[in-house]
Amino acid sequence: MDYFELYHPGLSVDCVIFGFHDNELKVLLLKMKNSKQWAVPGGFVKKQEDVDDAAIRVLKERTNIEDIYLRQFHLFGQKNRSDDSYVDSLVQDHVIREDMDSWFRQRFITVGYFALVEFSKVTPSPDQNSERCEWVPLTNIPDLILDHQEIINEALKALRNKLRFGPVGKNLLPPKFTMTELRTLYETILGEELDRRNFQRKMLSFGILDKLDETRKGGAHKAPFLYSFNEEKYNQKLIKGFDTIW
Amino acid sequence: MDYFELYHPGLSVDCVIFGFHDNELKVLLLKMKNSKQWAVPGGFVKKQEDVDDAAIRVLKERTNIEDIYLRQFHLFGQKNRSDDSYVDSLVQDHVIREDMDSWFRQRFITVGYFALVEFSKVTPSPDQNSERCEWVPLTNIPDLILDHQEIINEALKALRNKLRFGPVGKNLLPPKFTMTELRTLYETILGEELDRRNFQRKMLSFGILDKLDETRKGGAHKAPFLYSFNEEKYNQKLIKGFDTIW
Repeated sequence: MDYFELYHPGLSVDCVIFGFHDNELKVLLLKMKNSKQWAVPGGFVKKQEDVDDAAIRVLKERTNIEDIYLRQFHLFGQKNRSDDSYVDSLVQDHVIREDMDSWFRQRFITVGYFALVEFSKVTPSPDQNSERCEWVPLTNIPDLILDHQEIINEALKALRNKLRFGPVGKNLLPPKFTMTELRTLYETILGEELDRRNFQRKMLSFGILDKLDETRKGGAHKAPFLYSFNEEKYNQKLIKGFDTIW
Repeated sequence: MDYFELYHPGLSVDCVIFGFHDNELKVLLLKMKNSKQWAVPGGFVKKQEDVDDAAIRVLKERTNIEDIYLRQFHLFGQKNRSDDSYVDSLVQDHVIREDMDSWFRQRFITVGYFALVEFSKVTPSPDQNSERCEWVPLTNIPDLILDHQEIINEALKALRNKLRFGPVGKNLLPPKFTMTELRTLYETILGEELDRRNFQRKMLSFGILDKLDETRKGGAHKAPFLYSFNEEKYNQKLIKGFDTIW
């Protein structure tokens, strides 16, 4: 396969895939072959492919799901993102074949995307350069290649910003959830505790939740009510945002 | 000059430069040589240059100012952004020389930046492919090349979003301004009228303004007080945003 023939030169996409599980925010990472380092799933952009479609393709290959909430958040364009010693190590560790050497020695800019997925729906699949594909808690990220730690940091910032002016929960939670589960998700993303009553009041005021006629059974406490997102109103807020200050 | 030698392949930057003048939001546009079409200022990225630095360079060349408020807002990566007929017309209109033909026939992705500048400080300068460089009101944009109309639309969306959760006025206004001038700027960006009292109350509540001991003289009405942005508090809000809903 001739990479130069098939792909847009000097361009890649990298996807930070967020999932919520065990009250933790996790990202899907690849363990590189013959190396201790990990990487954010990514790939190249075909010459006849929109850049956004390349990201959708990579996500489908790694998670085996489609229709993912996916947003471009930043272009990483620093000239020293990579260097020859990095490619040397890839060749030495047999992560890439020698005949791909000149492709990988190009300067690459990469388009960062973040995705929000429902944890249970994902079947992680490694790519040709990796031996494992796993969910890793954000609090316990291993050593990553290149600027991938920065890419994750920026993705988290972008996700927090989204939370500030529109809804995000729907893509990360199962269809039915308690108010506590929703608040825990928000607390986890924001990295801070939120007041239980204030959160419930504000969240209900947006009108995006339907209170169901069901409760979550099995806990020690009084069984809490279940909620689901009201599809129509949620999508309206997704476009218009919560009421703005102006 | 060998473009392939000097520049990163298939990559450009385009800068939507916003200024505020005569109660209107304007953008700086280039009139293409021998063509009726206009373009957003842009350029290529040198092999040894960060992508952000390429945007800074383009802006300095077109506006003759440095230290501009500049933000990446979107990567335009559609495969059909350009086509051969577009390059044919560039060659035919002598906008580009024939020996640059193969460079321009590449598929280009472009990184969109928007800039906020103080109108009076800018000295517009055309580039080698254009005959004029002018401020054009957003309400009166002429026919533009490629997807440049979409690039402007997306830049405006990004600017409006900025306004929703942080301050933006400082880069668009002169150092001293009245509350009415500030409100007019916000109304113009948002494209809607704002309540005079509410605006003043909210704006003052952010604590980013210093009320000066001076008034604007010369009007028919009682001379209004002048304000300036408090540098330190403004910059804090720029980083932290206005108080969020959570």
